[in-house]
Amino acid sequence: MKKTTQLKNLIQSRDLQFIMEAHNGLSAKIVEEAGFKGIWGSGLSISASLGVRDNNEASWTQVLDVLEFMSDATSIPILLDGDTGYGNFNNMRRLVKKLEQRNIAGVCIEDKLFPKTNSFIGGEAQPLADIEEFCGKIQAAKESQTDDDFMVVARVEAFIAGWGLDEALRRAEAYRLAGADAILMHSKKSDPSDIEAFMKEWGNRHPVVIVPTKYYSTPTEYFKELGINLVIWANHNIRSSITAMQNTTKQVFNDESLINVEGNIASVSEVFRIQGADELKEAEKKYLPTNNKDISAVILA
Amino acid sequence: MKKTTQLKNLIQSRDLQFIMEAHNGLSAKIVEEAGFKGIWGSGLSISASLGVRDNNEASWTQVLDVLEFMSDATSIPILLDGDTGYGNFNNMRRLVKKLEQRNIAGVCIEDKLFPKTNSFIGGEAQPLADIEEFCGKIQAAKESQTDDDFMVVARVEAFIAGWGLDEALRRAEAYRLAGADAILMHSKKSDPSDIEAFMKEWGNRHPVVIVPTKYYSTPTEYFKELGINLVIWANHNIRSSITAMQNTTKQVFNDESLINVEGNIASVSEVFRIQGADELKEAEKKYLPTNNKDISAVILA
Amino acid sequence: MKKTTQLKNLIQSRDLQFIMEAHNGLSAKIVEEAGFKGIWGSGLSISASLGVRDNNEASWTQVLDVLEFMSDATSIPILLDGDTGYGNFNNMRRLVKKLEQRNIAGVCIEDKLFPKTNSFIGGEAQPLADIEEFCGKIQAAKESQTDDDFMVVARVEAFIAGWGLDEALRRAEAYRLAGADAILMHSKKSDPSDIEAFMKEWGNRHPVVIVPTKYYSTPTEYFKELGINLVIWANHNIRSSITAMQNTTKQVFNDESLINVEGNIASVSEVFRIQGADELKEAEKKYLPTNNKDISAVILA
Amino acid sequence: MKKTTQLKNLIQSRDLQFIMEAHNGLSAKIVEEAGFKGIWGSGLSISASLGVRDNNEASWTQVLDVLEFMSDATSIPILLDGDTGYGNFNNMRRLVKKLEQRNIAGVCIEDKLFPKTNSFIGGEAQPLADIEEFCGKIQAAKESQTDDDFMVVARVEAFIAGWGLDEALRRAEAYRLAGADAILMHSKKSDPSDIEAFMKEWGNRHPVVIVPTKYYSTPTEYFKELGINLVIWANHNIRSSITAMQNTTKQVFNDESLINVEGNIASVSEVFRIQGADELKEAEKKYLPTNNKDISAVILA
Repeated sequence: MKKTTQLKNLIQSRDLQFIMEAHNGLSAKIVEEAGFKGIWGSGLSISASLGVRDNNEASWTQVLDVLEFMSDATSIPILLDGDTGYGNFNNMRRLVKKLEQRNIAGVCIEDKLFPKTNSFIGGEAQPLADIEEFCGKIQAAKESQTDDDFMVVARVEAFIAGWGLDEALRRAEAYRLAGADAILMHSKKSDPSDIEAFMKEWGNRHPVVIVPTKYYSTPTEYFKELGINLVIWANHNIRSSITAMQNTTKQVFNDESLINVEGNIASVSEVFRIQGADELKEAEKKYLPTNNKDISAVILA
Repeated sequence: MKKTTQLKNLIQSRDLQFIMEAHNGLSAKIVEEAGFKGIWGSGLSISASLGVRDNNEASWTQVLDVLEFMSDATSIPILLDGDTGYGNFNNMRRLVKKLEQRNIAGVCIEDKLFPKTNSFIGGEAQPLADIEEFCGKIQAAKESQTDDDFMVVARVEAFIAGWGLDEALRRAEAYRLAGADAILMHSKKSDPSDIEAFMKEWGNRHPVVIVPTKYYSTPTEYFKELGINLVIWANHNIRSSITAMQNTTKQVFNDESLINVEGNIASVSEVFRIQGADELKEAEKKYLPTNNKDISAVILA
Repeated sequence: MKKTTQLKNLIQSRDLQFIMEAHNGLSAKIVEEAGFKGIWGSGLSISASLGVRDNNEASWTQVLDVLEFMSDATSIPILLDGDTGYGNFNNMRRLVKKLEQRNIAGVCIEDKLFPKTNSFIGGEAQPLADIEEFCGKIQAAKESQTDDDFMVVARVEAFIAGWGLDEALRRAEAYRLAGADAILMHSKKSDPSDIEAFMKEWGNRHPVVIVPTKYYSTPTEYFKELGINLVIWANHNIRSSITAMQNTTKQVFNDESLINVEGNIASVSEVFRIQGADELKEAEKKYLPTNNKDISAVILA
Repeated sequence: MKKTTQLKNLIQSRDLQFIMEAHNGLSAKIVEEAGFKGIWGSGLSISASLGVRDNNEASWTQVLDVLEFMSDATSIPILLDGDTGYGNFNNMRRLVKKLEQRNIAGVCIEDKLFPKTNSFIGGEAQPLADIEEFCGKIQAAKESQTDDDFMVVARVEAFIAGWGLDEALRRAEAYRLAGADAILMHSKKSDPSDIEAFMKEWGNRHPVVIVPTKYYSTPTEYFKELGINLVIWANHNIRSSITAMQNTTKQVFNDESLINVEGNIASVSEVFRIQGADELKEAEKKYLPTNNKDISAVILA
């Protein structure tokens, strides 16, 4: 099944579905191997992984390069956290075209301003994108996709930016009418009250996606009751890798030895397995000359 | 101090020095924060991180892009694991030029053939590069660097490829005479006997670098006795991140919840700290108009 | 019709067909607008355009980036001059995958060594790729394509490297049997005698492509008589642009004025037309808010 | 002399100086060979060359990749036409850092909005950047450069956008005070009256750069009288290459032959000369093994 269709099915599923963050080819593969049916290409995680801030410091084509490695390494769909679309409707059209070429299944764009600032930094209300302008962007995205199942998710930042339920509803409805395939309703509260309030008014109007990073202690069962379609576990691979690498690096630094580390980390063979070394070995047998083994000195030049 | 000079000092130090693997901007920063004085830009780790194999599947400019993020995120020197130099002497010249532009402090090249295969995959003897050709490559690298302190390390694969001590010594000496700043003597034995044998003959002739991935249980004190200059902990960050991400992802997949994960991984604030969010906040105060906060609706287009 | 199918039809056409060199999005578009049915993505021209030598100084992904712009700007197929495939069979497999993603219709690989040297530089005989190894590369390419119509053309350098008719025939036949969709028989003679000799023995066995850069004065009618399928005009856009830019630049430099240049070069409007400015104007009307024009001061940040 | 210092000297010269457009490594080299002392990295030309529109369709890192090839191919300074800086002050800081790494001597930014539209498309007045915000961007650029001679030129679009002399002067003075090294005053009139009016008020306050694309028929002597420091011939290489390639391609298409083209375009040898083929030949003699010529069959793998 096409990756786009896989993602569409996840978003439109009656059962609550889950996708998990990845930020490079390696983590994407790990997400697939764990059993997940989809990947969240997190802007925060990708930027953190690169070593830059989540404020469009990496260009959109650098993000695209990361996504290409992620998609090539996996067979499940990727939903890109596409910030604001990296510009206006025209940049959005290019983005959709490029994502389709790289076999990325969908993109989520948010109604903030470019260059973006991260939702969880700072406390004051932030200006949001003009609704009409953002709807034009959604429409442009939908009209430029060539694969009918490519997904465009509209992320509403109204709660995050301090604009309340009315604004959240107004925007969600506008984005739905503009053609968005789902609404991602974001909240930075540590309880699900924003989402709860929204879902009561929203009903089953259109698929809803949430990101319970802050309200992680809410039982998943409750999200099912509210009628949420898709939950994104948004940044937990990058965060677990940070802790692991910090611990490993400090241990090795203090010990000046690998002795206390070696047993607790993946083996080199496991690295090779994930990379698919075996396939290449088989392919070498098939495609390389059999006399290759006898060569003892070869001019490279 | 220039990064190249920092690396030169590490390599020429009388005391045993250590550098640690990193594979992206994030891990590079973690290595620096732990106290290490240098970073190993591991080919295996970078390729694994990207989700490809360590057989020149990523192009040399894609590797360069990774290194640029790593160097930008840190202030300690990076020694690149440069495979075979990605081609002949001319490709090597370009590589050195590009590494200098990105502020990478040095490159290690190995006397294998392009496209490379990983030393630890497969068992049979492998053909090595022609000595004269490899010396020409070293010479070309040294003569094209513009910063006198840029380091070129020659990695001898004679033991790995099954050619024995004589070949190892012959090659090490040839590479030294060709201008290499240090010899990296590689071994895949689980004890240090290869290195021991080499060092007894080699003496203090020229700086020696080792990678004790397989003979990790050898006490570091012994490397000091042998007169080794630099030890590379070669792939332990990528391996620790794999284990951590596999565990986290499986836990979240099985639980359909973050509840058992949240307390064990770096906080979102820690991600922001590593990314340098505070600096940007300060900079926004300095460079953005003060009336910015009052805007409530802005046309992006 | 798919670009791959378009190229297949050109290669398998009974009538002699022609494709023309381009080296960036602009020249690709010009080739299409002139009426050509296909584009030759020349390695020499692309490298010259970038300002580097045709010896794999640009990485294969940098070449890919150029091709992507070329393909995005046009609707006719591109046949890439893929040098040696940029490595071994495994690099070739990746190349095919990446070309398909970018909608490149086919690739021509030559039986020389990596890094390549240009056929027309220097006079002595050059070593060629091992036949068995090169056939493995062709087979790997064909077996990794997902679009049945993607074309793999095998370029025989036997004449160029001074190996004569027998070697040319032996290699052509081997490459045909390995799965190549066509044979590109290269010659550096100023008359068509190499091609003539080859075609007499080869007959109609399999499609044949030629590049009459050196024997340009041969009447095209004669190529038809010989049964050639496709002629590549290989580097004439880059060469005409060089002459034009050298003349224009010198004129402006000497005059310290545009006065003698303005009337002889494309207008700025023509540049906009080629870029498709009109489409964007229309799209802005459709997708941008109508109140946009009234804004007089906007905060960008 | 450093490229930045070269550009600084051009901008601060008492005599009128000239720089010429280039859009890739090839045209950059042609500009240098003609005798020019500097290169204009035109946004319009670079985008046209890539085959996209001059509306930030290419990402800023894709533009950077083009500039890197241009700078590597030449020894004279490049002043980048940096649009709006590709975002806010923070993107500007990254841009300056990246330009310095690639040895680009300076950047010109304009007080328009991101994504930019081309000054000469459409007729209505356009909104300009907030002055305070733009000054913050200039200041951020100047404070992030590490080379004191890196040049930041502020381009005033007030005349283009229909805001008149007062706005032009107000902005120019604000940008000067914010730290800009020169003011580029743009005009789309076919006579120099805008520039004339500005210079009369501006006097010798600070270096002034102009782009007489539209008022090309004004005698250069008059620019000297007005006290202009630097003239940019902004897009004439791309435009001359378009005409040449259109003519050549059509001729070859119609003739189905090279016969009428071959004599009028640069020879293949000239392409090789520009690429520096001779240097590589010499280097091969120096760095490649002398026994290389005797090899007749080589395994590439």
